Amino acid sequence: MNINGKAFRTIWLKSDDEKVIQIIDQRHLPHQFIIEELETVDHMATAIKDMHLRGAGLIGAAAGFGIYLATLEAPKNDSFDQFIFLAAEKLKSTRPTAVNLAWAVNKQLNAIQNGNTIQEKINIAFTMANEIANEDAEHCRRIGEHGLKLIEEISQNKNGGTVNILTHCNAGWLAFVDYGSASSAIYAAHDKGINVHVWVDETRPRNQGSSLTAWEMAQHGVPNTVIADNTGGHLMQHGMVDMVIIGSDRTTYTGDVANKIGTYLKALAANDNNIPFYAALPSSSIDWQMEDGLKEIVIEERNGDEVKYIEGLCDGEIKKVLLTPDSSKAANYGFDVTPARLITGIITERGICEPNKKSILNLFPEKK
Amino acid sequence: MNINGKAFRTIWLKSDDEKVIQIIDQRHLPHQFIIEELETVDHMATAIKDMHLRGAGLIGAAAGFGIYLATLEAPKNDSFDQFIFLAAEKLKSTRPTAVNLAWAVNKQLNAIQNGNTIQEKINIAFTMANEIANEDAEHCRRIGEHGLKLIEEISQNKNGGTVNILTHCNAGWLAFVDYGSASSAIYAAHDKGINVHVWVDETRPRNQGSSLTAWEMAQHGVPNTVIADNTGGHLMQHGMVDMVIIGSDRTTYTGDVANKIGTYLKALAANDNNIPFYAALPSSSIDWQMEDGLKEIVIEERNGDEVKYIEGLCDGEIKKVLLTPDSSKAANYGFDVTPARLITGIITERGICEPNKKSILNLFPEKK
Repeated sequence: MNINGKAFRTIWLKSDDEKVIQIIDQRHLPHQFIIEELETVDHMATAIKDMHLRGAGLIGAAAGFGIYLATLEAPKNDSFDQFIFLAAEKLKSTRPTAVNLAWAVNKQLNAIQNGNTIQEKINIAFTMANEIANEDAEHCRRIGEHGLKLIEEISQNKNGGTVNILTHCNAGWLAFVDYGSASSAIYAAHDKGINVHVWVDETRPRNQGSSLTAWEMAQHGVPNTVIADNTGGHLMQHGMVDMVIIGSDRTTYTGDVANKIGTYLKALAANDNNIPFYAALPSSSIDWQMEDGLKEIVIEERNGDEVKYIEGLCDGEIKKVLLTPDSSKAANYGFDVTPARLITGIITERGICEPNKKSILNLFPEKK
Repeated sequence: MNINGKAFRTIWLKSDDEKVIQIIDQRHLPHQFIIEELETVDHMATAIKDMHLRGAGLIGAAAGFGIYLATLEAPKNDSFDQFIFLAAEKLKSTRPTAVNLAWAVNKQLNAIQNGNTIQEKINIAFTMANEIANEDAEHCRRIGEHGLKLIEEISQNKNGGTVNILTHCNAGWLAFVDYGSASSAIYAAHDKGINVHVWVDETRPRNQGSSLTAWEMAQHGVPNTVIADNTGGHLMQHGMVDMVIIGSDRTTYTGDVANKIGTYLKALAANDNNIPFYAALPSSSIDWQMEDGLKEIVIEERNGDEVKYIEGLCDGEIKKVLLTPDSSKAANYGFDVTPARLITGIITERGICEPNKKSILNLFPEKK
């Protein structure tokens, strides 16, 4: 999508040096737009772990490029495979909740096996990294095509009045290689001239909504309003939300959705007010082994300092301020699980399905 | 309650000059403990409007003392009553959602009418201001006695294991003259040696939880953990919350509760997980005219900058940082309404009742 009128992806090969990966260092958004260069798998692991980049699809693409960087770095002898194996383990350990991470790493490892020489393996890793990234962008584009129909229908029911869409966290193009999942239908609708307005949950504690979603929506010209995470229920009670679209970090094949902490609360409110609640996700984030999201999905616990401190712009500089008593203890769970019963539908690259095993497997029969 | 081992209320007459009111300026908590002196009704109106003090009971007490300050200031001639009338209007307009505000002002106006001379009116206002404050503290103490039984029962069911209580915003002693509403039972249980632990919702956008509740709980020695507002649903899904106790800014006589924005979301989650959800409130915050909270309670809309910016401690100074793109629009609704159907019970100074007209009027038969 565009930044200041120029088309970007979130991750790409440096144009004059394909041994270097460039990313948008999202830690500095929305205040500064900084491009970071990554030259080693360790750089990439740090970028994933410390959230220079984040989001299901982008983490997958980053892992793919991470393995490609590892093939460049690895000793060009019998230790090559061992180096790649260790690099894969390192990448996988950076964000345990992100299913795309292991998916992309394993895809690379399987592909590389087919190379007969080290140079072939490097070439395969290069091709596969690009394929993973391109496929992510294409899947997001298709999610937008399918989701667009839902927004069009609401717009028609409102006689062209503004369609108010609430979203949580950032499932925008910044979370993928391009387009986004939850955002893709919104961009498609906006581009088609449908009046859309987005309620952007700020998404504490890391504020991906107010820092990333608000920024990318504004860059694309989509009207949006930032709200505290506490606000959505009130808006829904008063008819100010027509639809909720969120992303997913991990989805069971039975339709339970693990997404940024707080998603479950919005799903409850949507359910209580008869507002359609959709999860938009590429099928790469579906876990085909998991049946019960609440029991089986391991929820990442992050450092409590992310709750106690917050960063923002002050006098032109990024400053971190303390919000609690200095001695306070804080707990920081990264995700929650929204049970399938609260979800209206799941928007995938192949179409929209109901959040249950039968409907999901109808779209993805090869997983039966 | 105690601060650094010394007993305080939140508002009091200056000990050596009863023409001056002192308050804890809560804007500086939890980082600095600052006492502010108020000498005019304008000072008091500003303190209420700009939230140097906040909370249902404390706002009522402040309004009572505000009228007392007005009687001191008023011209001692025929314009006296007119001055008091205008002062009353000014005070009432500062926080439209706070039912205690109008209640305390009207109580003062009615009482003052009984004075035959200006000096008598001043004396009446002085006495009534103190009565309002003392009654608030006493009602909160009794709320704690009644609520204590609920916590004791859970503690017994857990064989003395820790009772985990989630609260939203600050309905602590800082929101009243003393004890608090939601906090009063927690303090009573803690003082009785029951193991309690409090999950403190930080309560965006103004962070009354992380700045006030966490601070006052820590001052009293109650174990507590600050969480992002998004977290409570996840904790409830996983059996980590035994009970929710929240306060109320305005309660209909049918049991609908207007409280800090986000309360409704926690009530939905408690309901979804069969966790008892109590509102603790002195009857002064019950609106005996209102039947339908969702339709009738006017929700205060505050400045969007409270969402865009946040204050905290940085290098020993309070700094305000920008969280969103500079050009972002933000919406800031102060309260939401939790419908009675989601509330387990209401804890008042006279006992615990169900959230319906019949049960509430049984406790307050004089309102029938």
